[in-house]
Amino acid sequence: MKKNIPLSTIRNFKTNEEVRAYLLLKEKHLRLTRDGKPYLDVILSDRSGTIIGKIWEHAGEIEPMIETGAPVGVRAIVEDFRGNKQLNIKRIVPVNEEDFASKGFSWELILPQSESNSDKLWKFIEKSMAKVNDPYLSELLRLLIVDNRSKILKHPASLRLHHATMGGFLEHMTYMLNLGIHAAKQYKLDQELVITGILLHDIGKLDELSGYPNNLYTDEGNFLGHVVMGYNMVDKAIAKIKGFPDDLALKIKHILVSHQGEYENQSPKKPAFPEALLIHYLDEMDARMDMMKTAISQELDDGDWTSIKNYFRIPLYKSQKDNDGTADK
Amino acid sequence: MKKNIPLSTIRNFKTNEEVRAYLLLKEKHLRLTRDGKPYLDVILSDRSGTIIGKIWEHAGEIEPMIETGAPVGVRAIVEDFRGNKQLNIKRIVPVNEEDFASKGFSWELILPQSESNSDKLWKFIEKSMAKVNDPYLSELLRLLIVDNRSKILKHPASLRLHHATMGGFLEHMTYMLNLGIHAAKQYKLDQELVITGILLHDIGKLDELSGYPNNLYTDEGNFLGHVVMGYNMVDKAIAKIKGFPDDLALKIKHILVSHQGEYENQSPKKPAFPEALLIHYLDEMDARMDMMKTAISQELDDGDWTSIKNYFRIPLYKSQKDNDGTADK
Amino acid sequence: MKKNIPLSTIRNFKTNEEVRAYLLLKEKHLRLTRDGKPYLDVILSDRSGTIIGKIWEHAGEIEPMIETGAPVGVRAIVEDFRGNKQLNIKRIVPVNEEDFASKGFSWELILPQSESNSDKLWKFIEKSMAKVNDPYLSELLRLLIVDNRSKILKHPASLRLHHATMGGFLEHMTYMLNLGIHAAKQYKLDQELVITGILLHDIGKLDELSGYPNNLYTDEGNFLGHVVMGYNMVDKAIAKIKGFPDDLALKIKHILVSHQGEYENQSPKKPAFPEALLIHYLDEMDARMDMMKTAISQELDDGDWTSIKNYFRIPLYKSQKDNDGTADK
Amino acid sequence: MKKNIPLSTIRNFKTNEEVRAYLLLKEKHLRLTRDGKPYLDVILSDRSGTIIGKIWEHAGEIEPMIETGAPVGVRAIVEDFRGNKQLNIKRIVPVNEEDFASKGFSWELILPQSESNSDKLWKFIEKSMAKVNDPYLSELLRLLIVDNRSKILKHPASLRLHHATMGGFLEHMTYMLNLGIHAAKQYKLDQELVITGILLHDIGKLDELSGYPNNLYTDEGNFLGHVVMGYNMVDKAIAKIKGFPDDLALKIKHILVSHQGEYENQSPKKPAFPEALLIHYLDEMDARMDMMKTAISQELDDGDWTSIKNYFRIPLYKSQKDNDGTADK
Amino acid sequence: MKKNIPLSTIRNFKTNEEVRAYLLLKEKHLRLTRDGKPYLDVILSDRSGTIIGKIWEHAGEIEPMIETGAPVGVRAIVEDFRGNKQLNIKRIVPVNEEDFASKGFSWELILPQSESNSDKLWKFIEKSMAKVNDPYLSELLRLLIVDNRSKILKHPASLRLHHATMGGFLEHMTYMLNLGIHAAKQYKLDQELVITGILLHDIGKLDELSGYPNNLYTDEGNFLGHVVMGYNMVDKAIAKIKGFPDDLALKIKHILVSHQGEYENQSPKKPAFPEALLIHYLDEMDARMDMMKTAISQELDDGDWTSIKNYFRIPLYKSQKDNDGTADK
Amino acid sequence: MKKNIPLSTIRNFKTNEEVRAYLLLKEKHLRLTRDGKPYLDVILSDRSGTIIGKIWEHAGEIEPMIETGAPVGVRAIVEDFRGNKQLNIKRIVPVNEEDFASKGFSWELILPQSESNSDKLWKFIEKSMAKVNDPYLSELLRLLIVDNRSKILKHPASLRLHHATMGGFLEHMTYMLNLGIHAAKQYKLDQELVITGILLHDIGKLDELSGYPNNLYTDEGNFLGHVVMGYNMVDKAIAKIKGFPDDLALKIKHILVSHQGEYENQSPKKPAFPEALLIHYLDEMDARMDMMKTAISQELDDGDWTSIKNYFRIPLYKSQKDNDGTADK
Repeated sequence: MKKNIPLSTIRNFKTNEEVRAYLLLKEKHLRLTRDGKPYLDVILSDRSGTIIGKIWEHAGEIEPMIETGAPVGVRAIVEDFRGNKQLNIKRIVPVNEEDFASKGFSWELILPQSESNSDKLWKFIEKSMAKVNDPYLSELLRLLIVDNRSKILKHPASLRLHHATMGGFLEHMTYMLNLGIHAAKQYKLDQELVITGILLHDIGKLDELSGYPNNLYTDEGNFLGHVVMGYNMVDKAIAKIKGFPDDLALKIKHILVSHQGEYENQSPKKPAFPEALLIHYLDEMDARMDMMKTAISQELDDGDWTSIKNYFRIPLYKSQKDNDGTADK
Repeated sequence: MKKNIPLSTIRNFKTNEEVRAYLLLKEKHLRLTRDGKPYLDVILSDRSGTIIGKIWEHAGEIEPMIETGAPVGVRAIVEDFRGNKQLNIKRIVPVNEEDFASKGFSWELILPQSESNSDKLWKFIEKSMAKVNDPYLSELLRLLIVDNRSKILKHPASLRLHHATMGGFLEHMTYMLNLGIHAAKQYKLDQELVITGILLHDIGKLDELSGYPNNLYTDEGNFLGHVVMGYNMVDKAIAKIKGFPDDLALKIKHILVSHQGEYENQSPKKPAFPEALLIHYLDEMDARMDMMKTAISQELDDGDWTSIKNYFRIPLYKSQKDNDGTADK
Repeated sequence: MKKNIPLSTIRNFKTNEEVRAYLLLKEKHLRLTRDGKPYLDVILSDRSGTIIGKIWEHAGEIEPMIETGAPVGVRAIVEDFRGNKQLNIKRIVPVNEEDFASKGFSWELILPQSESNSDKLWKFIEKSMAKVNDPYLSELLRLLIVDNRSKILKHPASLRLHHATMGGFLEHMTYMLNLGIHAAKQYKLDQELVITGILLHDIGKLDELSGYPNNLYTDEGNFLGHVVMGYNMVDKAIAKIKGFPDDLALKIKHILVSHQGEYENQSPKKPAFPEALLIHYLDEMDARMDMMKTAISQELDDGDWTSIKNYFRIPLYKSQKDNDGTADK
Repeated sequence: MKKNIPLSTIRNFKTNEEVRAYLLLKEKHLRLTRDGKPYLDVILSDRSGTIIGKIWEHAGEIEPMIETGAPVGVRAIVEDFRGNKQLNIKRIVPVNEEDFASKGFSWELILPQSESNSDKLWKFIEKSMAKVNDPYLSELLRLLIVDNRSKILKHPASLRLHHATMGGFLEHMTYMLNLGIHAAKQYKLDQELVITGILLHDIGKLDELSGYPNNLYTDEGNFLGHVVMGYNMVDKAIAKIKGFPDDLALKIKHILVSHQGEYENQSPKKPAFPEALLIHYLDEMDARMDMMKTAISQELDDGDWTSIKNYFRIPLYKSQKDNDGTADK
Repeated sequence: MKKNIPLSTIRNFKTNEEVRAYLLLKEKHLRLTRDGKPYLDVILSDRSGTIIGKIWEHAGEIEPMIETGAPVGVRAIVEDFRGNKQLNIKRIVPVNEEDFASKGFSWELILPQSESNSDKLWKFIEKSMAKVNDPYLSELLRLLIVDNRSKILKHPASLRLHHATMGGFLEHMTYMLNLGIHAAKQYKLDQELVITGILLHDIGKLDELSGYPNNLYTDEGNFLGHVVMGYNMVDKAIAKIKGFPDDLALKIKHILVSHQGEYENQSPKKPAFPEALLIHYLDEMDARMDMMKTAISQELDDGDWTSIKNYFRIPLYKSQKDNDGTADK
Repeated sequence: MKKNIPLSTIRNFKTNEEVRAYLLLKEKHLRLTRDGKPYLDVILSDRSGTIIGKIWEHAGEIEPMIETGAPVGVRAIVEDFRGNKQLNIKRIVPVNEEDFASKGFSWELILPQSESNSDKLWKFIEKSMAKVNDPYLSELLRLLIVDNRSKILKHPASLRLHHATMGGFLEHMTYMLNLGIHAAKQYKLDQELVITGILLHDIGKLDELSGYPNNLYTDEGNFLGHVVMGYNMVDKAIAKIKGFPDDLALKIKHILVSHQGEYENQSPKKPAFPEALLIHYLDEMDARMDMMKTAISQELDDGDWTSIKNYFRIPLYKSQKDNDGTADK
């Protein structure tokens, strides 16, 4: 690839420019133009967005060389098609981590990422777990959180709705914990139960979603859902811990099956004690905060207001985009 | 008790008559009349209904002799209080099965009973299980149905809503199976999966409800609910069966977690394949049919129509009470 | 048409192949290319699906020769346009039953068909009607079912939602009857009323929908709907039967006006006695079973799960497609 | 009865006073006091309200002399029981129109009455019908309105919800007509269709409700409802009118089946053209206006606000009770 | 522009014809064809509709000369693109009122207009205000209605939903007043309060919507909404009127905050007295009548029924389009 | 009053004991026993609960001496009436703060109290306000919070739903602030806006509710509601602050009108930027936490579970009653 064009990302592509980027190949389709010439229709993404591309030349030869779900290197002209940007691809090559790391490639370019530093977040998780002195709860966390550390560091918190990024799962837990520990004190709740409940409430998502780079629902996810799967993981882990108190076990399990709060939200139970209720609201609040932030930041049009095509179904006000905590004097 | 008064049941009590009956003591409260004399306020039930009673004499002595949740023998005058019947109790004695069986007592008098013969129903269950040739499903049914036979014979299908009788659980399964086997053929479904799914769909209720004579929600029932509990029972039983195919296991578990059909009905998943959908509808239909039958039969007032105080919130037409299958010429 | 290309159906068309087929012309539009040359844009369907086609040559001459709503014979190249198949039509001719029957044409190729054999289904209807001994109900069925036999054999059960095929009306009645007769016995209901109610519940659809080949709502259908129209047909038929008992007439009419079960489902009444309730649930269950089967079979993409773009709004599991009753050992 | 006590009405009864009134006997129950003495428990009403009464003396002799659903003459002391007024009845006698008319009795005292003068309202109806020049619509109104004149003059517009008074049906039609004629002009609608539609929209209620003095749902009312019944009455009347245009017939029938506006309000169709939509809104508006007026006037407590126990579920402001049109300067 | 082609409007454009029209430029986008040539993609509207256009020649030079939100003169060929009409623009020029008035241009051609004559409507408003004798209400109307006359004459009643035309605000008030004055008499309400309430209920929309030619939500409109804004305007105006009675002020304000009737319709209060309830229903009825009229008149396809793509989600019957009050004989 | 009986509170009353207490007289009704003797029926409350009482002797003389809404001193026997405690009052005297303070009376005994110390809470409010450096926001808080200090210290946060205690308003603000400040940092929001928004979101309640001892809705509260009233208070305060930035003013006002989050919850707008969304969720969470705590603590029956008669409509688990923060090791 021409070295004089700097690497760019989809969000920064400008119409009529030539660009160079590492992208993820989401789909490829070999098609025919009206006059019978083959061309390739592809969908590409990186951490900043998604774009359609066309390869008009040598499509038949290129098609078998690139693989869906794998990264590619692309050089292209950005064109406008019915008001959307589209790539007229001049060159496309398969990419692997070993060979291309030196050429600027990294998975971080391609996959949606939590903004937070995952090591820092994990330290906060560890610090929170250290507050859990109850030996049964502590052992339960070891089995389900500590032992799943590497998976948790990369997992998203949902398919698309909120924190749908590498590390989003970790970020969601951290944010809930941070507020949950303060809230537990304020409402005079069992803080260790609150910490444990927050850390475990979405544990079923580790198996409901396949994780990146694909991040799809697994078969088990489609059949059972993370609420029931997480409950089962907790039930099995508790069974391994000798002497785990029955009452405490029921409380933890109840937090799992009630954390979505309302029946219509696929929650088979509603929260029946204050710790469970708190966790439900923290979960809801953190998810919605992330969804609003994302809805505002993904709107690329000008103007102070987004369109109503977002989860909240209203125009959102965009001018607070620049708040970055500096208001906290 | 006076032998010349025949045993009666609450439904047959007539105002101003003297009656004799074996009843279940649901509540007792020692209270004072305005002039300071103690009396006993009791709630009594049998399989035909519930009634309030007062014991005006010797209340202080009688109170410790009778026990909530246990059967009593009663002789009383039926009085009218604000339009409802009420017992003016002249004599009340504790009763036990051994001593009073010879005097006409049996639990069947007291507890609400399915109208069907439980042995006959169980035979139908066995016949249905015999159609399941798949060795894994067959073994699963052995572990969860056959091994729970004695409990299943007496269990209700719900707390109050439908088939809330001794044997109601069994009756509900039988009715669903009878139609489900025909439906599986008609819709070209996996009949063995349908039979297994019907037999297991409510299995969690064996632990969610304490069963008769008390029939209350257990702690686990309140915390987790029968959907999730049943799923867990199936999951554990499958774990005991070596080589149980994964795909089949997921299907059975999905039937468990989706059988209530709609999220707002505490179903964490909606049915995702035809066998699961069929089981949901059979469950719904059989429950509603039982509820309408009960609503009509429990209305004691005259006239062709019930009041609107029933599950369906409309007046129900009563004149078909006498249909007993004889129309099936 | 070239005889060496075998007749095919839309579902079996493969991109880049040449195909030959009898199709129904749903729409035709004469348009201009950018350089002013006329072309024909057409929509074509057969029993297996729908496809768009273009006629680039002689469009002006061909346009008046082919008629919307009528069958055509087509020879074309299957092309890919934005991921969908599309026909580049080389030859298109009007077709009529007399002349083309010998060349392989039949309406069955073109119109969506119930999978069941209609003669066999009708025999089941006749057998069920024979169980109705009551002379009034029997005469009512003669007037509304027997006398409408030829229409019933071809009618769909709905516009698009369920059993939207030639013979779908018949199939829906048959499936409900098959289960309804068993259910009537089980619940000790008036079996003759159940059979009559099932056969008549949707009778208004014979006039609400125009039937194939067009199958649109009639004016009367749009203004009044099949619930009210069916009630009126039954009311008029009863008026012709001397001595029809009032009570029985009201019950039948109530089944008509309550069969959709819930007010929000355009039902002016909710079922008020068990036979009416049963018919509502059988109707609901059979419709949903057909809709799930159709949603699964119409998904052509690979993978074990459908998209969520179906009536149930969830991914459906496709692997049971092959169940064909063989499980019924 | 003591002649020196003037006739009163329930609304004007004051605690601890002796009163004399003609009332309707709604219910009677012979009961026993705790010490075994019989007494009569009765419910009585007149056009101003409903009250409970007790007859402590000669209850056994009096009981067979008075008849449920018939008028009685009563002399009683007004007592307070748990915050509600109650009659301690000293004398009660059966009453008939012939003998007691001279003693001040009239049905108007007893039955709830529209405030409007029914002759005046009927004249307005006649004037409105005179605007309908179309011979088919005119004949339809003759068959269904003119020929039912005597029934319409006394009929309520609903069981309890709105205009539940003698003459309420007539008042509801009149109020809708008065606004509807202006609205038809304003919106440039077919005024004759609007007038006819308003006059017929609730015609089914003539048979759905039994009318006063009992005013209950008839069997047919319970089974079918006034929407469907009214449609059927119109259908039959149209069948008697030779040459009635099909299109006009469908429009009238559509107004009947759509006038409740929304499916969840038991409307099998929603309004599909402007005249039908207008009639739905006039119906809704007039019903709600009457319900609010009644809710405010029936609240007897002091204070500026009603309780929230009314159809609207909010406190209603009462101070406009005195508005009587005098604001219309 | 060629003088021999008469001015036309979008609704009257016919495929393959050459047309000439004054239109509003809603959007313009400079784009590239596949072979790199610039073209202009524009969206144009007039009072009869909206259309897409392409300018293939001299796009780069034309683009800076025409301005979004301003009127243009256009000469073009009407082409068909995928079943929709589209303009192939041969000539486009900026237009201003002064220079082009003589050439047939007027804003009325371009902006959606109420059908009614605004002077006549305003006279009706003045006549209605004259009925308000209360000096406080009268002064309030002077401040908020009379002083806003010029704005009111041009304002729409909503963004898109109903009366979304120049003068629509005025028309909506007039139609509500016309019926409201009759209704106030009929229901014996405070007529002056009804007139004042109707005139002020939507006053907040003067600031919530920017008005034509752009007619967008203002920032304040997005943040606060017209209900709250109108209440505030009334509150401030009342504060300027010395001695305004408290009770009357609260009633007017309540009408403002309750006029949308139901909480889910963004109404912070529900109507609590009859005048407020009446205004809610008149508002609802007039809005829906306008929406149905518009839905029917905007449907351009043949046939007696519209599609279901309208506010009411049902097919609407179109044949009454020609009713124009002549039925009012 | 007998000095040897210690002062008690309603919650601690035991059946058949004699008690002495200062209570609030909520209602009094002079009634007649069946034999014509007057008695007084009263409703009494203190901070721990509510109880019915009867005064059988000297009722006529006592009635004018005691005043509804004022405190009384009571000596009585606790009796059981149909399962509820009831006072047989032997002595009742009017009480005033001056004379009875020395005899143990204080308002704190009588009115429901927040558990928190109000001075400590106010200090937290002051500390939070000190973080607001923006001079406009700071001045706004001075006008609306600081200047209303004495009212805020005693005000409830709602009529009955949550924090319905003296000081409940203050407690609700404090709890929201405590979490809100942490959350603002976490989500990188404008912390000063969050603090200001929390402090002002319910400011309208100061005028919507009359406060203790009566705590009823004011007329203005009924007509307008606290959302709209609070918005108006803020609007007026801002108008007094010279140079208040428009954008900031709109944001604050939006927080006021959107804080109830959903339209059906009487919110005329939904939150349109993250600070507004956060405040909505903190409000919701804190209210529900208080409601669950109250529902559990008010249940006096034995057993681990409450009944379902609470806001959440499910049995709540009571065993965590003793958690008092000691878990926070």
